[in-house]
Amino acid sequence: MIINLNGRICSEDEAVISVLDHGFLFGDSVYEVVRTHKGKLFTAKEHLERLQRSANRLMMMLPLTNEQFTEELIRTHKILNVDEAYMRLIVTRGVGALELHPASCQSQNYIIMAKPIDNWADELYSKGMSLSIVSILRNDPFALDPQIKSGNYLNNVLAIIEAKKSGADEGLMCNKYGYVSEGTNFNVFMVKDNVLITPELSSGILEGITRMIVLKLARANDIQVVEGKITPEDIISADEVFISSSTRDIMPVYKIDNTLLPKPTPGKMTQFLAQKFQEFLDVSVS
Amino acid sequence: MIINLNGRICSEDEAVISVLDHGFLFGDSVYEVVRTHKGKLFTAKEHLERLQRSANRLMMMLPLTNEQFTEELIRTHKILNVDEAYMRLIVTRGVGALELHPASCQSQNYIIMAKPIDNWADELYSKGMSLSIVSILRNDPFALDPQIKSGNYLNNVLAIIEAKKSGADEGLMCNKYGYVSEGTNFNVFMVKDNVLITPELSSGILEGITRMIVLKLARANDIQVVEGKITPEDIISADEVFISSSTRDIMPVYKIDNTLLPKPTPGKMTQFLAQKFQEFLDVSVS
Repeated sequence: MIINLNGRICSEDEAVISVLDHGFLFGDSVYEVVRTHKGKLFTAKEHLERLQRSANRLMMMLPLTNEQFTEELIRTHKILNVDEAYMRLIVTRGVGALELHPASCQSQNYIIMAKPIDNWADELYSKGMSLSIVSILRNDPFALDPQIKSGNYLNNVLAIIEAKKSGADEGLMCNKYGYVSEGTNFNVFMVKDNVLITPELSSGILEGITRMIVLKLARANDIQVVEGKITPEDIISADEVFISSSTRDIMPVYKIDNTLLPKPTPGKMTQFLAQKFQEFLDVSVS
Repeated sequence: MIINLNGRICSEDEAVISVLDHGFLFGDSVYEVVRTHKGKLFTAKEHLERLQRSANRLMMMLPLTNEQFTEELIRTHKILNVDEAYMRLIVTRGVGALELHPASCQSQNYIIMAKPIDNWADELYSKGMSLSIVSILRNDPFALDPQIKSGNYLNNVLAIIEAKKSGADEGLMCNKYGYVSEGTNFNVFMVKDNVLITPELSSGILEGITRMIVLKLARANDIQVVEGKITPEDIISADEVFISSSTRDIMPVYKIDNTLLPKPTPGKMTQFLAQKFQEFLDVSVS
């Protein structure tokens, strides 16, 4: 891994930040994960726009323009020099007084962590992953909106700990009304009677960029799409379930809690959309 | 300010932490603020026990025993060498992989930030402070329990930003049911018809140590105490309102939103309890 610390490229060991940065003290930071494909940034524009929206909601200024961030991402990626890279861009509120209000924070810090993207096990794509619907609820949008991609991830940490304890690969969270919202760091989709269904934004989820692409691809291919309310019972009795994320693309689910989904996994629509997504990925960077 | 970083005393400038510490990446840390009075630690035992409870809820190990933490607090305080000190003890999950699950975090880090305690303006005690009931709800205990004193404080940051924007000194948050819960970093009390009323723990609040002492002192002095549900209307129409925190002790409130509370502020019971608290503080360290 190499790290870009406010424009200075350094090693993991050198990448340190003041303990008085509000990003450390309060998790007062925003972030995005941008990947590259075949050596080119993928959907960087969308990620940087979302970073800006996250910052806006926290009344946080960004230290660079989107153009400057893009240049730094490209420069960092060139030094890393791998085709398929994971780049985590974090912007912190900066160093300030030991008080919650950010008024004393004079200058934001940014960090780009770049490394080869994780190779998820082939089996997770061919056989699928298992999900657990955890008891931890997703953060209430009226308290801390999941649309803000921030440094406050304990809600998700508690969810993944609970999911792993139950033997599942990943955790799925419900909102306070009992509807399925999202995973610890992914969106979720189900297929029922050839309709593609995913939790609506008002269920309290991050508007995933892979999610957005999947919905576009589905609509472009005349698949009926519903963004709505999904109960745990709905998803457990689905014909197909898959997840989406920037580092995993589309990954099928074969089991939720102790219920096996209908075989074969991945299902037909999951396979179709995964194929379309791969084509989109290839075309986007060509 | 001086900083104790895993046992090594350093200056503000030297106090840095890896950007790969999960405390920085996800706010995956717990903390306490311990004060000294007349050169002695005040209620350190209670704070360290609460730190342990916060860590337990996050399935986090602590790197030192309570006895060892106490020794480090005393040692750090001796070097700072002021009678009235503020000491923030933070324990982070430690450096790990870029994934939410803490399994890869091998060793927790601890940090003690020590400085002279803030001198709040005399006016805040003599005239009182103003509160705004903010629109941001307090974190849902079923998502991220406010009883966990952690590095996830964006909920509170949003609340204080909103309160300050409206011209108030501080913000008061309600829970998802609409009842008053707590401030951005303090508990709240009201007095009505000589009864002392404070939000019950199940309203989704941190169990404040100053709150606990205030309740004990009230009961010991035959004041009727209710831990229950408080609506915004209840508190706005109270006879007296005050807040409690480890750095502010008891501070009266003279205004909530645009409503002035009955004069004179501080009210009689607030004055009485503030006096009793001061006596308790003096006796505790003697």
